[in-house]
Order: sequence, then C-alpha cells, then structure tokens
Amino acid sequence: MDQRISFVTLAVADVALSEQFYCGGLGWTPQMYVEGEVLMIRVGAHVVLSLWDRAAFEAEVGPIAGGAAGASGVPPVTLAHNVRTREEVDAILRRARELGAGPVTAGQEREWGGYTGYFADPDGYRWEIAYNPGEIGDLVLP
Amino acid sequence: MDQRISFVTLAVADVALSEQFYCGGLGWTPQMYVEGEVLMIRVGAHVVLSLWDRAAFEAEVGPIAGGAAGASGVPPVTLAHNVRTREEVDAILRRARELGAGPVTAGQEREWGGYTGYFADPDGYRWEIAYNPGEIGDLVLP
Repeated sequence: MDQRISFVTLAVADVALSEQFYCGGLGWTPQMYVEGEVLMIRVGAHVVLSLWDRAAFEAEVGPIAGGAAGASGVPPVTLAHNVRTREEVDAILRRARELGAGPVTAGQEREWGGYTGYFADPDGYRWEIAYNPGEIGDLVLP
Repeated sequence: MDQRISFVTLAVADVALSEQFYCGGLGWTPQMYVEGEVLMIRVGAHVVLSLWDRAAFEAEVGPIAGGAAGASGVPPVTLAHNVRTREEVDAILRRARELGAGPVTAGQEREWGGYTGYFADPDGYRWEIAYNPGEIGDLVLP
C-alpha cells in the first residue's frame, strides 16, 4: 500500500450549505455535485475533498462519535491550506470572516516558526491557513 | 483562496502507536517524526498527513467533540486510498487484517459502480480502500 490519500471525506449535515460555502463563498469549482448527497472538489493533483451527507456517511461507515450534529467541541481533524506569506494568511482569514465562516482565529506566530490561523466551515471543520517557512512548508506549495 | 489541501491533520492518542502502524506496519516513510508530538507522512505531491498528539491538538484547536478518546462511534472523516482493481482492494484489506488494523470491513460493490472496503488505524480513523471505475476514479490515480 503506497502512501497516498485519494479522497478526504467529511460528514456534513447539509450538503447544500457546504456547496454555498465552498463554491458560492470561496469560489471553488465542484468536480461533482449531487444535491442532498455529495459535493466533490478537487484539492490537489490526485486528491479530492468530498463533503458527504451525514446520514449516508453513517449508514456506510457507522455512527459518528460525539452523537448528534451540533455537539459541542471540534472535529478531530483539521485541513491546512498553506501560502507563501504571513500577509496571505491574514488576507484569507479576513475573507473568511467576511463570509461569516464560523469562529475565525487570527493568525499568530507558532513556536515551530510558522504563522497560522483557523476558520470553520458550516459543519465546524477547521481550516488552518498557514505560512510555514520550513522544508515541509516548501514541499506542500504548488 | 485556491482549492488546495496542504495538510490533513488527525488528532491521535499516542503518536508512537501511529508510527508503529503507519511506518512499521504499512511501511510508509515519515517526512518528520517528533516522538510524543507529531508524525508527518507525505501522501501526495503537495500533501502531508499529520498525526498530531491529541493534547497538543486540543490546546491549539479546541476540545474535541465526543469527549474522551475511546468514545464509541467513528470519527466524522474518512481517508480513501484508490487502486486500479478490485483485487488490489482485497489484497490491501487482507494485509490490514494481518496487521490487526481495527475493524476491517470486506470489499463490497457500491451502488455508484465501485468496490470498496474499510480498515481502521489505531485511533479508529477509517481508510477506505477503493476501486472506482469512473472519471473521478481516474483523476485520483497517480
């Protein structure tokens, strides 16, 4: 099994809200959209982000820990979007705030030398907007 | 904000167990490993999987919904690893079973035309091993 992720699938309460946020708000182009079921967005050369209706997710994968949607607390996963400068981090977080993206935490210096902040999508999934001046930071930039 | 995922970060109870599973078991090569803190593995041209100590994750991102580790139920995220044939799906699930990878569900035909099954990593994160004969299936293959 070679080390590859092909899809990142997130269970969502309302696929239409995800579509509004990612496509309407962030302006991303869907690769596939089936109303009420699934929204797929290409997020890398060979990687797709899939926002999948929670009921369908649970029917196939199993009941989600933490119970009902809206449970307090954050999901145990974050997605990072890396950029080349601190200024780009701030600009994207500002844009997220304009879009009303859940709680937005301002960019801050991190002990490992980077600068990052977070916003949340409609289901509370955190996106970390990151400037990482290190070797791994270079690796993830297109 | 262009449509890119740079890092997929999962909160884990014990980074050493993650290292045993992904590196020792699956044979993946770490990009970075800091004992007790984080394990980073390259899983795409510009994508890194990060297994991050749960306490550090919660200190930065917030308390995880569903409370204590070991809460019943699955995380709201799955990662898919796509391959070219049904036989490869079966072979990887067999290997996962040998490694003692959590609950393994056998490959099965899906209504959308594919064939997939799941295994779990030490924290219960589900990997879907998938054969997808469609257009998106082609897209995610290297």
